[in-house]
Amino acid sequence: MSDFPKFVEFHEEGVREGFQIEPVIHPIERRIKLIDSLSETGLTQIQVGSFVSPKAVPTMADTAQLFEGIKRKEGVDYTALWLNKKGVMLANEAKDVAMDARILFYTTDAFSMANNNCTATEMRDHQVEFLDMYLQQGLVPSGAYIMTAFGCNFGGPVLLEAVTDLVKWTVDLCADRKTPLPAIYLADTVGWANPEGLKQQIGAVRELVPDARIGLHLHDTRGLGAANVYAALEMGVDLFDASVAGLGGCPFAGHGSATSAGNICTEDMVFLCHEMGIETGIDLNALIESARLAEDIIGRPLNGRIMHAGSLDKYRSN
Amino acid sequence: MSDFPKFVEFHEEGVREGFQIEPVIHPIERRIKLIDSLSETGLTQIQVGSFVSPKAVPTMADTAQLFEGIKRKEGVDYTALWLNKKGVMLANEAKDVAMDARILFYTTDAFSMANNNCTATEMRDHQVEFLDMYLQQGLVPSGAYIMTAFGCNFGGPVLLEAVTDLVKWTVDLCADRKTPLPAIYLADTVGWANPEGLKQQIGAVRELVPDARIGLHLHDTRGLGAANVYAALEMGVDLFDASVAGLGGCPFAGHGSATSAGNICTEDMVFLCHEMGIETGIDLNALIESARLAEDIIGRPLNGRIMHAGSLDKYRSN
Repeated sequence: MSDFPKFVEFHEEGVREGFQIEPVIHPIERRIKLIDSLSETGLTQIQVGSFVSPKAVPTMADTAQLFEGIKRKEGVDYTALWLNKKGVMLANEAKDVAMDARILFYTTDAFSMANNNCTATEMRDHQVEFLDMYLQQGLVPSGAYIMTAFGCNFGGPVLLEAVTDLVKWTVDLCADRKTPLPAIYLADTVGWANPEGLKQQIGAVRELVPDARIGLHLHDTRGLGAANVYAALEMGVDLFDASVAGLGGCPFAGHGSATSAGNICTEDMVFLCHEMGIETGIDLNALIESARLAEDIIGRPLNGRIMHAGSLDKYRSN
Repeated sequence: MSDFPKFVEFHEEGVREGFQIEPVIHPIERRIKLIDSLSETGLTQIQVGSFVSPKAVPTMADTAQLFEGIKRKEGVDYTALWLNKKGVMLANEAKDVAMDARILFYTTDAFSMANNNCTATEMRDHQVEFLDMYLQQGLVPSGAYIMTAFGCNFGGPVLLEAVTDLVKWTVDLCADRKTPLPAIYLADTVGWANPEGLKQQIGAVRELVPDARIGLHLHDTRGLGAANVYAALEMGVDLFDASVAGLGGCPFAGHGSATSAGNICTEDMVFLCHEMGIETGIDLNALIESARLAEDIIGRPLNGRIMHAGSLDKYRSN
């Protein structure tokens, strides 16, 4: 029996995921226009950019200016990503950043070394410091992200136990700090998840933390994005990171590259929900217009599908 | 409870679907090379081309030469599409065409008019003539295709009843001719299907014809292709038309075009099956190589995902 949610929330990550990996810096006025367009679609959370090293990620160097330039819509949280304490400081200094106080874990040393230059255990210890810093700032943690929850291009397959051990450890950490753990995010940045494995993992995590919301960060790296979302909906999952137009993929990536496809595409997944009678609070046609704007800015065909085919509304109103 | 099949069969339609809509005629030697490459992947049915009007579809005009040029692999059926009796005659005259004796129905007059210049009822009557002609030739019908089984860009939403009525009519027709009806294919060429609607339709058709195999012809027009395949697998469906590299889409199609995305991508869906322990008889890595060859011939990035990211084998053998 399926246990579909009545309402699904999408966190829009396209602006950050998409422009971050672009080989050029697209004009800031156009990116502001895109964010302003997304603000009018009914989305409630939009990730604007990253406060990370401008040397390592030059395309995100003007994130503070983005926060200056955008028109804010009531009811929308404008968030940012960071990977270290300097990033948190910059986010605090920037204009009205919604502080998404997440803690971030890796299942494998290999991916942790590649992304953060420390082992998974060291990363875990760093997150204790992050959590304490957030709590000192009066921030409630938004949740724990388990990166490479399904498999890792550096470390190979990830056992379910590696994920549940990490979840247990995080639950204990939050209990020890007497702080709630509102959500566990399972991330498949590198395209290893399949619907059945995903269901198994969701079930196992839910059993451990029945009160935490489960969120998913899925990429469409190997074409199973929509199947994974549908499987998660069957399990009652109601929170997804997604990218307008499927931003985040790069067609210039050589064969064998994890970045050749982006996140699951927000408007395609909104369409999936709506067709099954699940509400999202999002105006699909408005979001399709945002996706087309994103494609126009990027200047090449993007991965999203319904943005090209159009919604079914015009046929239904016949 | 899911009722996954143990083995899934994919019918490869990429060569026909993909090259048919191309704005240019790609060199026949290269298309032969692609078919020969597909022959080595473990696929058991490959649609080579169409015997249709060369004026209407110039890209398919050399289908007979394709049948002359390809290397045949034992155990592979090389099929073709036709829409009228002249097409059947040409297929009979061409070299070793596996006669896929299908009958083809439309749920809406509008789509039938657009594709065949006759109403759905007239099309139904034509199919009686086709069936009788097949039987006279000693051919066993391969199955009945219900086109626009979920919705139609010309006629709007299609009611479940329209499909079940057509299925009942076909069952009676075959019973009357004392010929078996081995399969019912539900086709969603224009991207209206969603996983729940699809499950409902599969259930209703199965109830009517429990002995017929159900096959699906799905396009990824609005990004739900993989979700629809997974939903069908949950219902035990074990037969899918698909296109290598997701061929069949055309990025030059304007916004609002049904042809902007192609069929579900064979190798991505083979990956889906394999990851869930479902066998296909197909060598995924060999099929990925065929997909890359298809992309090389077409000369622009195609919709397939795993062909760009690569399979997981190299990470698992670490």
